[in-house]
Amino acid sequence: MNIDGIATRTLRAHPERRIIDIIDQTRLPLALQWARIGTLEEAAHAIRAMQVRGAPLIGVTAAYGLAIALAGEASDARLAGAAAALGATRPTAVNLRWALARMQAKLQALPPAMREEAAWAEAAAIAEEDVTQNAAIGRHGLGLLRRITPRQGKTLHVMTHCNAGWLATVDGGTALAPVYAAHDAGLPVHVWVSETRPRNQGLLTAWELARHGVPHTVIADNAAGILLGAGRADAVIVGADRIAANGDVANKVGTYLKALACADNGVPFYVAAPSSTLDAGCADGAAIPIEERDGDELRLLHGFDAGGAPSALRQLASGEAVHNPAFDVTPARLVTALVTERGVCPASRAGLAALHPELRHAG
Amino acid sequence: MNIDGIATRTLRAHPERRIIDIIDQTRLPLALQWARIGTLEEAAHAIRAMQVRGAPLIGVTAAYGLAIALAGEASDARLAGAAAALGATRPTAVNLRWALARMQAKLQALPPAMREEAAWAEAAAIAEEDVTQNAAIGRHGLGLLRRITPRQGKTLHVMTHCNAGWLATVDGGTALAPVYAAHDAGLPVHVWVSETRPRNQGLLTAWELARHGVPHTVIADNAAGILLGAGRADAVIVGADRIAANGDVANKVGTYLKALACADNGVPFYVAAPSSTLDAGCADGAAIPIEERDGDELRLLHGFDAGGAPSALRQLASGEAVHNPAFDVTPARLVTALVTERGVCPASRAGLAALHPELRHAG
Repeated sequence: MNIDGIATRTLRAHPERRIIDIIDQTRLPLALQWARIGTLEEAAHAIRAMQVRGAPLIGVTAAYGLAIALAGEASDARLAGAAAALGATRPTAVNLRWALARMQAKLQALPPAMREEAAWAEAAAIAEEDVTQNAAIGRHGLGLLRRITPRQGKTLHVMTHCNAGWLATVDGGTALAPVYAAHDAGLPVHVWVSETRPRNQGLLTAWELARHGVPHTVIADNAAGILLGAGRADAVIVGADRIAANGDVANKVGTYLKALACADNGVPFYVAAPSSTLDAGCADGAAIPIEERDGDELRLLHGFDAGGAPSALRQLASGEAVHNPAFDVTPARLVTALVTERGVCPASRAGLAALHPELRHAG
Repeated sequence: MNIDGIATRTLRAHPERRIIDIIDQTRLPLALQWARIGTLEEAAHAIRAMQVRGAPLIGVTAAYGLAIALAGEASDARLAGAAAALGATRPTAVNLRWALARMQAKLQALPPAMREEAAWAEAAAIAEEDVTQNAAIGRHGLGLLRRITPRQGKTLHVMTHCNAGWLATVDGGTALAPVYAAHDAGLPVHVWVSETRPRNQGLLTAWELARHGVPHTVIADNAAGILLGAGRADAVIVGADRIAANGDVANKVGTYLKALACADNGVPFYVAAPSSTLDAGCADGAAIPIEERDGDELRLLHGFDAGGAPSALRQLASGEAVHNPAFDVTPARLVTALVTERGVCPASRAGLAALHPELRHAG
């Protein structure tokens, strides 16, 4: 995406210096600040603390984290240990496991002396594929949006949840890729952006839509129902952290509630994600592990003080009991269609397998 | 409710001094602080700024506000002007209009010289009725909860939204009245408390449940779906700001999403409110005006600094577009039962009219 007129990715690799630079997303939306990752521990921390987030970007960051971890020593033990450390950072997004498994398969086949350079190359390949796949998701999704655009010249209102945009990927976004494609094609589009408590990733969505000039309005998560009930959104599009073989979708907590409101009001509910988000090993949503995060995400409020510096306030006493699941599962029956880089398909075992034959062999 | 061992109401009237004291709910949950209301303007401000909130308490505060406004002058013009000013503070909760209409009908029939004293007496009568009615709601609701309690000795898990407890009333609460009744009767009960963005009234619910010793856990609004899907709540109980003649319910924004998740998972969804919340003049939910509140409720985060003083942080730039409806409408088909002080009834025109014959004459 263009940031201040400069084509910018969310992650910059410097293989020659064995570092990557990432946008520290915990500082957005009021400050755009880059953070340097030069150790395995820094990479794991960046994922765990959500300096980087979004299933695709987590996968790419982990791949680079593995490359960084091989500096000086690229033994089998080092490789396995680094992959385990990175894999343990967050449980739900399958792209993380997918990227690490792909890196390990590639590197284990090589002698240790060749692994470090190969790791940087493979991480770069994963990053490039992410960009290419998101562009394809944008094209396929644009086809869907054109079909539901009310009529020539009338604004298309799309609602999204969390951030499945440029910031959740290396570039282009997943759920927002069709929105950017529509905007760039001259289709008048407006986005309802839900805040996405407790981590407020909706504010990241608002920030990046503003950078790209896409009209949008922020709402509380609670407001999705009244807007959908009033016919003020033509579609909901979200990303995914894991899609089971039957089409059930794990995504940011609150997604299921939006899907219910879509079904109750006849509004299409689309899920856009790269095929690396499909988990052939999960028969259905019940098999997807749901991350439980720190209760302080609810007890504390994170924002910016009058001077623009990041700051926190307490809204609940530290002893107050809190339950904080980070994801929920939307059953396939509520998903109108899935969009991957390979095309649009129904959220069903057969629909997925038609486009993704690799799912057929799984159990 | 007992606060630090002392039976306490949320509003204390001092007719001889022509003032009332209210709990300033914008300071909770970290500080319990009383505010004094001695003018019409202060009463209107307290309602508008949500120092008092909750449909029943808004009605009582407006009634006392009218009494306060009659000090020195109780002419027809003064009475009408004060009622108009108080009635314009918030549009959705019908109890506000109901209380003001009741006060006006009573006072207009009297000569001006008798009005001030009568106003204080009538406001006190409305406050007393609120307490009595909430106790009845608690008894009727307890009957419902006993029927769904999983089995002897097992904890009953109830989810609520916003605050329809002690703090939303003069005493006792509406949606929480059955919960308090169950707890006091020795039924093991636990409450899932949703944060209720953007004003976080769930934190008020957590605060008052803690004062009463009722086990509870705070969740993000987004987490309601995964909990209901996992069978971790046996019922949802909410209050109401207005109930249309057909049983459609206007309540805090986000209520509709919880009702959808209940229906999708076979969990009962109950609405508890005094009969003053019924609006015979509204045929259905589409006729209920929905308040749109200031976007800064989303742009700013209100909490407490390290020293415990109220403080605010910015989370969105001041120019960021925001849409902030304060209520939504849950269609009657999603409401398992309504509980008023007169008993339990289906959410339908016939069901309501059987218990509330005054609805029959309306249109």
